[in-house]
Amino acid sequence: MSSLIISKSKLFSNLESIYNAVNTQIACVIKDNAYGHGIIEISKLLSEFGIKSVFVKNNFEAIKIKDLFDHITILYPTSFDNLNDNIYLSVSDLNHISNITFNTGIELKVNTGMNRNGIEVEDLQKTLELIKKRNLRLIGVFTHNGYGDMDNRNLSDEFLLQQNIFRNVKQVVLDFVNNNNMPLPRFHSLSSSGAIKCREIDDDLVRIGIAMYGYLGVDCDLNLNPIAELWVDKISSRYLKAGSKIGYDGKYVLNNDCIVSSYDIGYGDGLFRLNENHSEMRTKDGSLILPRMSMDATSIISDKDRLCFMHDANEVARIFGTIPYEVLCRISPFIKREIVD
Amino acid sequence: MSSLIISKSKLFSNLESIYNAVNTQIACVIKDNAYGHGIIEISKLLSEFGIKSVFVKNNFEAIKIKDLFDHITILYPTSFDNLNDNIYLSVSDLNHISNITFNTGIELKVNTGMNRNGIEVEDLQKTLELIKKRNLRLIGVFTHNGYGDMDNRNLSDEFLLQQNIFRNVKQVVLDFVNNNNMPLPRFHSLSSSGAIKCREIDDDLVRIGIAMYGYLGVDCDLNLNPIAELWVDKISSRYLKAGSKIGYDGKYVLNNDCIVSSYDIGYGDGLFRLNENHSEMRTKDGSLILPRMSMDATSIISDKDRLCFMHDANEVARIFGTIPYEVLCRISPFIKREIVD
Repeated sequence: MSSLIISKSKLFSNLESIYNAVNTQIACVIKDNAYGHGIIEISKLLSEFGIKSVFVKNNFEAIKIKDLFDHITILYPTSFDNLNDNIYLSVSDLNHISNITFNTGIELKVNTGMNRNGIEVEDLQKTLELIKKRNLRLIGVFTHNGYGDMDNRNLSDEFLLQQNIFRNVKQVVLDFVNNNNMPLPRFHSLSSSGAIKCREIDDDLVRIGIAMYGYLGVDCDLNLNPIAELWVDKISSRYLKAGSKIGYDGKYVLNNDCIVSSYDIGYGDGLFRLNENHSEMRTKDGSLILPRMSMDATSIISDKDRLCFMHDANEVARIFGTIPYEVLCRISPFIKREIVD
Repeated sequence: MSSLIISKSKLFSNLESIYNAVNTQIACVIKDNAYGHGIIEISKLLSEFGIKSVFVKNNFEAIKIKDLFDHITILYPTSFDNLNDNIYLSVSDLNHISNITFNTGIELKVNTGMNRNGIEVEDLQKTLELIKKRNLRLIGVFTHNGYGDMDNRNLSDEFLLQQNIFRNVKQVVLDFVNNNNMPLPRFHSLSSSGAIKCREIDDDLVRIGIAMYGYLGVDCDLNLNPIAELWVDKISSRYLKAGSKIGYDGKYVLNNDCIVSSYDIGYGDGLFRLNENHSEMRTKDGSLILPRMSMDATSIISDKDRLCFMHDANEVARIFGTIPYEVLCRISPFIKREIVD
């Protein structure tokens, strides 16, 4: 049975490397089933490591892990109810505030230039007044600097401009809470690439997602290692002559006599559907994966009972013209997760 | 909250059209979470329609729907236990037979030229003897003719060759069961495209997957309609000036002043990650979807609170160079399913 094998030691080592680089509190981004790794399995490991704050996608994810962390922020709430004292709703639109249950913990998202989610800077004062009036607990104020991946090693002008806007946002918030005797919220703006490139961080925490899973879109000196490997089992084997055709429409034709086996993984398990137009793809041990991949099975030139189908999402991302995030987060939640030391 | 809206009347109408074309018992393929539609929701509808036989991916899927059908075949068993009298294991390798619990129902898969799964034709006699010795219930014997999608309207030579090999397989099986006083198994070889093109079918049933969901890779006279639409909700809106940049690295630059909203769907929900290298993508109402898509949010030139993000997987497949099967089966199981008449 195919399984995603997750290395605890690699996860912990990645977190230590990141902490040494950023020297700021790390909050972990475990949204989208922990970028496809398995939210429950990853959460247990993070809790054991000592992580206190996490960010999840929606209410369903928050409920699954509510007993494991002190602070759980829902980035995309699916309702405005107060789920639990340690679960906070991200607020991206000032019109939502009047729908949120009194006394709910919230983190206010501000748009500092990515123009995607968050309230506008010019609406900040009005929003803070609404939050106070509605008697919501303002746990945090944050933005998402979407320019962290640009310009491999340096911080781009756009990145610095967003940081500057966020500095002004902080000042407005600080003045407001001081004048109104409200508790000080936490401030955060950086995700993995921005945090690791920035080095001098004046926020209260950084939100680490992709880097803890062992990937980073930019060059860095950190020693990060992918924490997951996808292993698959053989379904059946056959010895085939050169010229034999394999799979749908017989699109793959063998060059040599060899043993070809099918394995229990396919695009129905969240893999990208390899076809004859893509460049060559191989398993960790170098065995050739034959296009076309089926929904539940893939033919490989191998006779092994079990093999590592994927160990580096970067390689897969390169073949399919995308980023490792997409490769990882689409791994089916129905594949078994297994933790190893 | 984003949701996949499934039309019961379209599903039933597709099944009726298919039945009129094939005039043979229809078994439904609901593997891989019913090609992404939701295995429980689709199974309830199929059961109501009167479907008796289904094909699922693995043991976990079989257990979920065990009370809804008379015959459930697991195409890729994850164990060799006898789960229930109405649940059958597909056998693709003769070495597996000795591991299967006595008296388990099985369907024997034979390789007739796709060279992917199934026992070899030359091992058929030996396999039948093993099945008898092991006292397994031989419910069916089948193959997968992987050449049904070739040659748009006509049946290719490869298709006809596979059908011919399967006819010989049937004869061997019939002789064996007659000589051994075993019950007659059911025979099947065709999936949607092959079944609909073939018209004169001498099997006991056809396995219908993609066609009942409203898609078919080949031309046909059938009136099939996609049964699912993906609807999404607005997260936040903003009025932006021409020249404003949106999303990661500011890759999309607005040509005109307009309202841009972000919606609660992203590649973390199983969508393909639209980026600036892909051709234009629009919602059902014609609104422009702006690259780059994020993991949990997508910006669209629209101010609507709710809109239909995807209504035809063929269009998405075309943009991303793949087939509708891949588009459908990767829709996240965590998205809410809603049945409408």
